[in-house]
Formats: sequence, C-alpha cells, structure tokens
Amino acid sequence: MPNPLRAAIVGATGYTSLELLRWLLRHPQVKVTVLASRKLEQPISRVFPELLGRSDLTIELFEPGVIAQKADIAFLCVPHATAMEYVPDLLAAGLRVIDLSADYRLKDAQLYEKWYKHPHSDTQNLVHAVYGLPEIFARQIAEAKLIANPGCYATCAILPLSPLVKAGLIDPQDIIVNAASGISGAGRNPAPQHHFPERNEAFEAYAIGTHRHAPEMVEGIKAGSGKKVDITFVPHLVPMDRGILSTIYARPMGQATIGSALDAWHAAYSASPFVRIRTDVGPSTKFVINTNYIDMAIYEYNNRWIIISALDNMVKGAAGQAIENMNIAAGFPRAMGLN
Amino acid sequence: MPNPLRAAIVGATGYTSLELLRWLLRHPQVKVTVLASRKLEQPISRVFPELLGRSDLTIELFEPGVIAQKADIAFLCVPHATAMEYVPDLLAAGLRVIDLSADYRLKDAQLYEKWYKHPHSDTQNLVHAVYGLPEIFARQIAEAKLIANPGCYATCAILPLSPLVKAGLIDPQDIIVNAASGISGAGRNPAPQHHFPERNEAFEAYAIGTHRHAPEMVEGIKAGSGKKVDITFVPHLVPMDRGILSTIYARPMGQATIGSALDAWHAAYSASPFVRIRTDVGPSTKFVINTNYIDMAIYEYNNRWIIISALDNMVKGAAGQAIENMNIAAGFPRAMGLN
Amino acid sequence: MPNPLRAAIVGATGYTSLELLRWLLRHPQVKVTVLASRKLEQPISRVFPELLGRSDLTIELFEPGVIAQKADIAFLCVPHATAMEYVPDLLAAGLRVIDLSADYRLKDAQLYEKWYKHPHSDTQNLVHAVYGLPEIFARQIAEAKLIANPGCYATCAILPLSPLVKAGLIDPQDIIVNAASGISGAGRNPAPQHHFPERNEAFEAYAIGTHRHAPEMVEGIKAGSGKKVDITFVPHLVPMDRGILSTIYARPMGQATIGSALDAWHAAYSASPFVRIRTDVGPSTKFVINTNYIDMAIYEYNNRWIIISALDNMVKGAAGQAIENMNIAAGFPRAMGLN
Amino acid sequence: MPNPLRAAIVGATGYTSLELLRWLLRHPQVKVTVLASRKLEQPISRVFPELLGRSDLTIELFEPGVIAQKADIAFLCVPHATAMEYVPDLLAAGLRVIDLSADYRLKDAQLYEKWYKHPHSDTQNLVHAVYGLPEIFARQIAEAKLIANPGCYATCAILPLSPLVKAGLIDPQDIIVNAASGISGAGRNPAPQHHFPERNEAFEAYAIGTHRHAPEMVEGIKAGSGKKVDITFVPHLVPMDRGILSTIYARPMGQATIGSALDAWHAAYSASPFVRIRTDVGPSTKFVINTNYIDMAIYEYNNRWIIISALDNMVKGAAGQAIENMNIAAGFPRAMGLN
Repeated sequence: MPNPLRAAIVGATGYTSLELLRWLLRHPQVKVTVLASRKLEQPISRVFPELLGRSDLTIELFEPGVIAQKADIAFLCVPHATAMEYVPDLLAAGLRVIDLSADYRLKDAQLYEKWYKHPHSDTQNLVHAVYGLPEIFARQIAEAKLIANPGCYATCAILPLSPLVKAGLIDPQDIIVNAASGISGAGRNPAPQHHFPERNEAFEAYAIGTHRHAPEMVEGIKAGSGKKVDITFVPHLVPMDRGILSTIYARPMGQATIGSALDAWHAAYSASPFVRIRTDVGPSTKFVINTNYIDMAIYEYNNRWIIISALDNMVKGAAGQAIENMNIAAGFPRAMGLN
Repeated sequence: MPNPLRAAIVGATGYTSLELLRWLLRHPQVKVTVLASRKLEQPISRVFPELLGRSDLTIELFEPGVIAQKADIAFLCVPHATAMEYVPDLLAAGLRVIDLSADYRLKDAQLYEKWYKHPHSDTQNLVHAVYGLPEIFARQIAEAKLIANPGCYATCAILPLSPLVKAGLIDPQDIIVNAASGISGAGRNPAPQHHFPERNEAFEAYAIGTHRHAPEMVEGIKAGSGKKVDITFVPHLVPMDRGILSTIYARPMGQATIGSALDAWHAAYSASPFVRIRTDVGPSTKFVINTNYIDMAIYEYNNRWIIISALDNMVKGAAGQAIENMNIAAGFPRAMGLN
Repeated sequence: MPNPLRAAIVGATGYTSLELLRWLLRHPQVKVTVLASRKLEQPISRVFPELLGRSDLTIELFEPGVIAQKADIAFLCVPHATAMEYVPDLLAAGLRVIDLSADYRLKDAQLYEKWYKHPHSDTQNLVHAVYGLPEIFARQIAEAKLIANPGCYATCAILPLSPLVKAGLIDPQDIIVNAASGISGAGRNPAPQHHFPERNEAFEAYAIGTHRHAPEMVEGIKAGSGKKVDITFVPHLVPMDRGILSTIYARPMGQATIGSALDAWHAAYSASPFVRIRTDVGPSTKFVINTNYIDMAIYEYNNRWIIISALDNMVKGAAGQAIENMNIAAGFPRAMGLN
Repeated sequence: MPNPLRAAIVGATGYTSLELLRWLLRHPQVKVTVLASRKLEQPISRVFPELLGRSDLTIELFEPGVIAQKADIAFLCVPHATAMEYVPDLLAAGLRVIDLSADYRLKDAQLYEKWYKHPHSDTQNLVHAVYGLPEIFARQIAEAKLIANPGCYATCAILPLSPLVKAGLIDPQDIIVNAASGISGAGRNPAPQHHFPERNEAFEAYAIGTHRHAPEMVEGIKAGSGKKVDITFVPHLVPMDRGILSTIYARPMGQATIGSALDAWHAAYSASPFVRIRTDVGPSTKFVINTNYIDMAIYEYNNRWIIISALDNMVKGAAGQAIENMNIAAGFPRAMGLN
C-alpha cells in the first residue's frame, strides 16, 4: 500500500466525518487529502470550529475522478441512498471504499428495500461488499474493495451474541436487545425532539419494532454464527453525547454455563485488540467513550442470561471501526492510530 | 379527620423528605407541624437552602410522644431497618403512619430477611401494614393505620403488569423489567460512583439479580392479580435528576391482543386519577417529572409485548404517592394537593 | 374582579405558554378558558404530551372578539413584533393584557427600533404600558390595562441593582452583569446551536454587546432608581434546562459597606414575597428552579462588590412573574397560586 | 535524553493522573514505567476500569530510590503540601520533576503560606522551580529540574492577559476574571456538593475572594509582563465534565484598539502551537475539550474589553500542559503526543 495512505472523506459535514478526521489526523500512516461534499465549499474549520489550527483542509465538491487522483481510499459519510449513488463511480475510479452508511450492510436487496423504503440501485456492488466487522470478517476485509461499515447498535449486539449463538449456548429464538444511546447517534441535523431542553433530563424508548439496525443484527449474527436468530430490539435515548450500552436477555440452552459463555467469547476474540471481556466491573459507557473498545460482561439471573455490552457509537460504532477496517485493508497493524 | 391535618416528617434530611415537604407546603388541608431526625436539630432551610422563606420549621429530635401531641399522621423517610424501630412507638402513640422505607412492603418476614440481610423486628405490625398502591389497594388504605409506601421501580412495574397478569393476557413466567432511573433515586448520601464526573455522561446497569425492588414487584403483582409471577429485573442509571422509565418485555398468551391489554388497563384504572394510558406518543420521563402521573403504553413486536411505563421516582415513586395515600386515609379527594 | 378570573393564553405553543398553563392550572382563582395561536388548531396535549389528562383545552385560532367574550385577561406569549400587532385589538375588546414579549418593555420607541431593528407600530399603547416588575411597580400594575412582563436577564439584574443605585451605594457608570442561563431561555424552536450534542457539555458566551435585555436593564434601573446607569452585559449558556445566575460586579462609592447594601435591599423588599436576601449560602440556580423566587447575596472583594442573583428564567423570569402581575391586577393576594 | 523517556506518575489515583496516563500511553517517545501512590498497591485498571487492556501497570508504594532507577522524569499528581514532601527526595535521586500540585507555583513562601494556610517546607527548591507555562517560560523550562505546572484557571487567565498587560494596552488595576469550570476540576474525591443530583442542573459561583488561583494569576502575569496587576476572580461551576471558559473584563488604555490587542497576542504566540486566537466564532469549551488548545477572542463593548478564553482543565489546564513541559525539557518537539 502507498505510504502514507491518502484518504478522502466524502460527506464531510456530519458528526461521523468529524470523528473520522480527528482520529485520522493522529494516524501515523495516513494523510487526509480530500474532504468532499455535495454542496458546500469552505474550510473545514468553518464547519467545525474545533478544527481550527488542526486541519487546513477545505471542503471541495464531490468529483470521483478528482478524488481518485488525490486519494487511495474513500470513506463515505453520506446518508443512506446517497452512498449507493456514489459508490459505483468511486470503485470504478480505482478507489477502495469504506461506506459508513447503511447501503451495503444488508446483502439482500429486498430486505434493504423493505426496511429502507426504496429499491437498492447498486445490487452489482452489493454482492461484493464485505460487512466490516473486523472481529468476524477480518480475512474478507483485507481483500475487499468495498467495505460496509456496521451500524453502532448492530456492532454492540452482534459481537457479544455471535459466539454464543454459534456455540449453541443460547436459544436463537429468544433474544432481546434493549439498548440505550447518547444523542450524537441521531446525527448533526437539528430536530425538534433533539432540541436541548427536550432531550436533556429525558429518557425514552423510540423506534420500537422499526429500527433498521434490527435486521442488520439478525444478518450479522447469521453471517457470524451460521444460525438464524430472532431479535426483539428496543433502543432508547440517554441525555449524553456518546456511548451505547446494550442489555441483552437470552435463554441459556442445555448445560450452558456462564463459564462456557466466557470461554466462547475468549476463543472468538483472543486475537481481537478491541474486545474487552469484563469480569471485574460491569460495562459502562463511561469506560469506552473516546476509545475503540467494546466491553462485554455476562450474568445469570432467573434462568436467563443478561449480557451487557458497551461501546462508543462514534468510535467502535462508526469512525474507529472504519479506521480498523482501513488498517486491515491497508496491511497496517490493526490498532494503529486507534490507541 | 382533623382539619387541617397535622403531619410530621421523620427523617427530614433526605431527598424524599424534601420532596414531601415541597408538596405538603402546597396542600390546602395539611399543615406540617413536625420535622424530626435522630441527630440533627437545625432549621430545615439550613439543610435545604431552597426552603428559605418557604418553611420556618426547625428539625427536632425524634420523640414519638411529642410527635403524637403535635401531629395526626407521620411520614417516615428514614432508612429501612430504622423504620421498623420507630413504627411501633408511633402507632402506640396513636399516629397513623406512612412508611416510605422498605420495612413493611414485603409481608413475609423471611423474604424480608433474605433480601435485606437482617431479621424483621416488628412482625406484629407487619401483618397489619397495607401496601400503599392506591390504584389497587385504595379500600384497605382508607382504613390502614400503617401504610407501606411502595418502591419507585416497583410502582412503575406493578401498575402496568398487574391488570395484564390478572386478566391472563401474558405469561406470568416470562417477564423482563428493564428499567432506568435518574440519580435522585440513589439518595442524598454522596458516594464515589455518584460523584458528578463519574455519573455524568455515563449509562450503566447495576444490581443485576440483587435489587430489592424485584421481590417487591413479584409480591405486588401477586397481591394485585392473585398470580405468582417470575420477573427478571435489571435497573440502570441515567445521568439526570429524576424519572424512571421501564421497558417491560412479556409474552402474550392465547388470543391476547394489544386491544385486550388496553381494555384491561382501562378497566383497572378508569377511576385512577394518576394513570395515563398513552396511545398518542410513547412515554418519556420528561412528560411525568414533577407530577404524580404514571404513563403507560404497549406495543407488539416479534410476538412479544413491549410495555413502556414512566413516572417520577420522587413523586409517584415516593412522596406524591405517599400524599395520595394520606389523602385516601384522611378522606380527602385523592388528587388534592397533587396537581 | 370576576371569580374565577378567566384567562386566555395567546401564542400557546411555546415554553413560556406551557409554563404559564402549568401554574395557572394550579391557581385557585383562575380558569384558563382560551388557548390561541395563529396557525394551529389542536388539543394542547398534542403539542405538549405532558398535559394529557391535565388540560383538555384545544388551541383555537386567534380572534380578539372571541377571546374578549370568553376571557377577562390575556397573556401574550407570541414573539416580539407580533405582540404589538395583537395588543391594540385585545385592549379595544376590553381585555387586560399581560405581554410576555419584549414589545412594550422599552418606553422609548426609538430605543426599541434601535435594538429590535424595526419600528414600533403601537406607540399609542406603549405610553400606557406598565413595566411588570412587582417589587418596584406594584402600584402601577394594579391599575394597568397593559403590563409589559420583564425579560428574564433583566429581572435578575434590575432587582439586585436598583436599590443600590437608588441609595447611591455604587458607581452607576461601572457595572458589569455577567449572567448564565439554562437553554429553555432560547425558546422551543430547534436551532443548530441548541441541538443536544452541540449544547451539552458546552459553556460559552453569546450576544456580546448585542443582547436586547441590556437596554431593558438600563431602563428598568432608571425607572426604579431615578438614575442613569451604564451596564456591560455578557450572557452565557449553561447545559441545563432552566435557571439564570447573574454575577454582578460594581464599585462601592464613598463609605458604602456590605451592611448598607443589605439594608437597602431589606428596605426595598421587606414586603416582597419572592425576594430572598441570602446571607447563609450563596445563590444557586438549583435553589430557585421551579419557584418564583429571586435569590440575592453580596460580597466584597478587592474593593469591588460581587452581587450574585438567581432566578428561574421560566418562572420569576417569565410565567411566574406574569401570574404575580395578574394577581396584583386582579386584586388577589400577590403570591396566590405561586407557592 | 533517553529514548524512550521513562516516566513515573506519583499520586496515581486521581483524575489528573488518569488524564496524564491516557496521553502518555499515546506518546511515541515516552514509556510510563512507574505508577506510585502512598497507600494503594493494585493494578491501575482496578482503579480506573477504562484502562483495562490499555495499561497493565500496577500501582506501587512511593519509593524515590526505586523511581529513580526506573524512570527519568516524575510527574507529581499528589495534593499540595504532599508534593513538597516528595520533591526534595525525587530531585536528590536525580529525577526531573513536573509537579502538578500548587506547591511550587508561588515563588514567595509567605504568599504561599497566606493562601495555603501552612508554611512552605521546601523553600530551597522553591527558588529554582520554573513556572511551567510554555508560551512564556519555554527557555527556562528547557533547563529546569523542577517544573511547577500551572493551575487550570490561572493558565486560562494569564495567557490572554499577559501580552495585553505587557504592551500597556489595559489598565492593570481594573481586571475581572469571571470563569466557569466543569466538575472534574474539583477532583475525584466525592463531596456532598458534587453529588450528581446536587450538581446537575445547577450553576453557581464559589470561593469568592478565596480561590488560590487568584494570587497565581497575579504572579504569573507579573512574571510574564513585568507588571503588577489587581485581579478580581470569581469562579463558577458548570454541570459538565470538563472545560473552563473565562470571561475577562478589562479597560483599554490610551489609544488601544482591538486591533492592537490582536497584534499583541499574535506577536506573543506566533510560535506557540496550542494558542488559537479566534476571530471566526467565539470560544466555547466544546471546541477545546480533549485537546491541549487554549482559544481566545476579544470584543469591545461600552468602553470595556471583553476577553473570552477557553481550555480543557484536564489537558491544557493540567496533564496536557505537563506533557508539553516534558517535551520541552526532554528536547522533543513541543506538540509531540498532544495532537
């Protein structure tokens, strides 16, 4: 791979892009050479005043050809539906692409259409896209031209569940993922329900039965474990900036013990630098924010297993995982720039 | 009953006591005549600067005889184990007692000892104590000398669940109560884990399998529905002052529909001024804080029912419910002073 | 005055209106009979889900004639510039009006135009409007047909400063008002800068030299003290829902002592139920939120006086003060419904 | 200097130490070899669960001789009064020392005693200590054996003020520093006033006339500008984790203009990598948290200058600045490991 690796960020004005840029500015082998947007041409430090003096890049209009000249890899931080408009040209121009939108996560175009309410326009590349969960698909990621970076809630559920399902330790038909997220997960667009006085000092559930990370969890676990699962997923909003905590309820099967669950996790993640299996204290969003770690722990109670997992939705749930994928794709050490 | 009703608050330096006092100062038929504590004699406005000019009461040392002379009813805001030391004398002195501690909530002294780790020293009065959930036990509350005011999490689970269990709509063996609370629920004593920089921007589960409101839920639902239930209860902490939201997972049985669940709720609570069955928007702690309401809604998803309930842990979960109990016991309109 | 007093709220969909309604629903002598808006006809509980079961009023389109039939007094919670369109018709229809906008606060139409960037269209009524600061203008408020309810920052500065200026204790040319407010003060309209992840965990100054409450402070102090003052006013935003704290820097003159300042305050506010002069602990927004109190304290340091005042911007800074004005205008006890 | 530089952190269980460790773990030329404490021997990840997997260091009991063998430089994160007990032995053992406590900041032992209420026990080293503000004392820092790392509020005031005082642009006798800080500045020890429900949704001033950073500001500006200033300093607490914003009021002298002030800043800080002079948007704590930057801007209003400065109290106000000092002392690029 070229050194330094030249990176472009497309869709440069959202929270994910800011997070990506912050980490990449610190990466020893990467140079961000392009920030692109569909509509805005201006210094990035005008959009994000925290970047004054840290990046003198100026956002330029999206031009695949120009990006291909200036960059080796492109991160897409655009909304779903937009990503699949951009990907074909970027791939055709010879770039490797890490798409942080949802467009290439569900391999089944009909399932995509069902949940995202419009047809998939790039089924050709969809076939070749690799789901960018490095703990499970590192080998495929290394070769992939197009990496679909996973959703934040999905990452936080698939990683703890997949080894347990695969090992046959839990009933695949009886899984509940109760999750809670900080508000950065809702994006940078101001909405009445995320106006500070509405969101502060408030806790509530949302999108019951309709959240798009639910089918992604099912697909991800199936890909990781080979088994079909049913998941009841209920997300909540917490008045804080970042962090997701999942409280997962599952039924142990047969002779499964907490020890066997821990064994399955350790076996699955012994080589994974960002999975922390906790037996000291319970996971908290506080322990993972601003890091690329996912913490997980497991408890038995009333013949149920309670699995707690936590990550930073902006890092392991988005930008950090994207960089991990980039590291793998570029042949860099997997944790490079992520400490 | 006397008019105004003269009220004493015993254990006057905690958050529950402050909340009780705030509401009682506004109650048209009540006069708070005694604030008592075991150790502190000083103006209440020194303990709670927000009360300057609102109450000129001074905390006095706890003396049951003195309280009996000055008051008709006593609210106990002392820790569990202390309450059962005080109750016999207060009852003997002729007072009616509303105990906001946990000491008289579990009718079975052995169950109490199992969860609270010490024997119950007042089993005599325990027998006669009435569980102060007005929506279910109003009749008994009206006659009770000793009212055990329910726990905050327990109230938030029993009220939505009891009618559904009673009507046979859900499987009593497959109930999960996933709840989240603001930090006032942890009391006023500073603890390392509730130090602002630890608790702020953090979300986590706690007391998995060990929270004492779990057996209280089971007992409360049994008393309300006549049926034994199993409940998996996992509480969480939210970085906000007040409010509890429960996300309850249950399995509908037979032909049960959401409509039948709503019917059961409406039938149970048609005369209950503080239960709001929501079909407009989902419950949020924001909609109930600083009120005595409990909001509830129900959703079907993946052949599960998701029940969301919300209340203010300091009001419907503590002080407001205590006043509601007092109103009933005193023959006042049930919502008096609680609007 | 009629009993109950029938009240209309015009501009019913903002935070001020919600706060007003919450307090008025508890007022023993007032019945809210009209909620009006320019564009929206729907149940108020649809706009504010917290009002479900508490108010069954429906917002109706603004019609002065209809309001005059149904109400005795109208509270205007519309934006500035809109208020002065409505006021003439409401007064002509025989209503008393309490305007919570800024339109009638500055008695000088040219000053108004300078700060609000458009001409004043109702100079006729402007002359007769009374500035609704009950601690200073109670007599005029009792007779007023049109009351201009003061701004939140202005109230928090005028009340501590006016007696000191009047008594000649501080240099009127050397006053700094450094204030900080919770975010409800910015209104209910979502704006990018008040999107939760932007505002949370952030503290900043804004509107330096341009905030419209600055001339209002100058005018209010002049009206209260008879003296012209210069004020340097810098407001800040605090990541919390409600509350304003002013840290005021002034120069004592001649032999002025802290004792003389306290004397001036006590003399000015001995009959004012909502002014708390603190010598116990320093004011905090925590002690005044959800109350109609303004707390104040004074310190000497480096030959400067530091005056700290605090109030709830939604109560003493808006709705509560409006009700206090209504009480005075209606001949009710001044604190009625405000405890 | 040795490479990597071996660093010890003494007083390893506080927030400053955690922050220092987080940054040092990322520093390309530093290896933390010792964590020491007076009382606690245990893995650092038991004290700070966020460090699990990131540091396998174990806290050891403080032994200067042992530290001298294992490390080249020691960071002291112990309370004031303790630091001056440790420093003589560490220096004698040949270590360079960066003291993050207040013990060596005030060069005058009597001034120290006046503000810290006990005598200075190490006046011998006090003479040689260098005040570690790299923007002003970089040359001395490069040679220093003992560096007194500045206070957070002091840094946030000295940096914007010193060039203006030095250039004679503002009246040195008329300066007010009104500052507000997140709660991590209060340390990790739980205190009743920092219990989450007390601190959340609260804004207040504290330590009026008694805060120890006030004399430090005066001394720092004197050292930087050669002039004696008077400063009225009032700190406040903001319900957020980190960040300080200072709103400084000063009187311009003679023909001084905002342009001349900006010139003075640019001249003073042209070579300073972490000073950002903002003319785009006003400083906000949001723009500097988790960075080593100090942002500053200046406004004219009512013949006063309003200077706003902001930094992260844990980074530029503590750990980051300590690393900057270490970089200078070790001959590393000044910003190394701080991006």
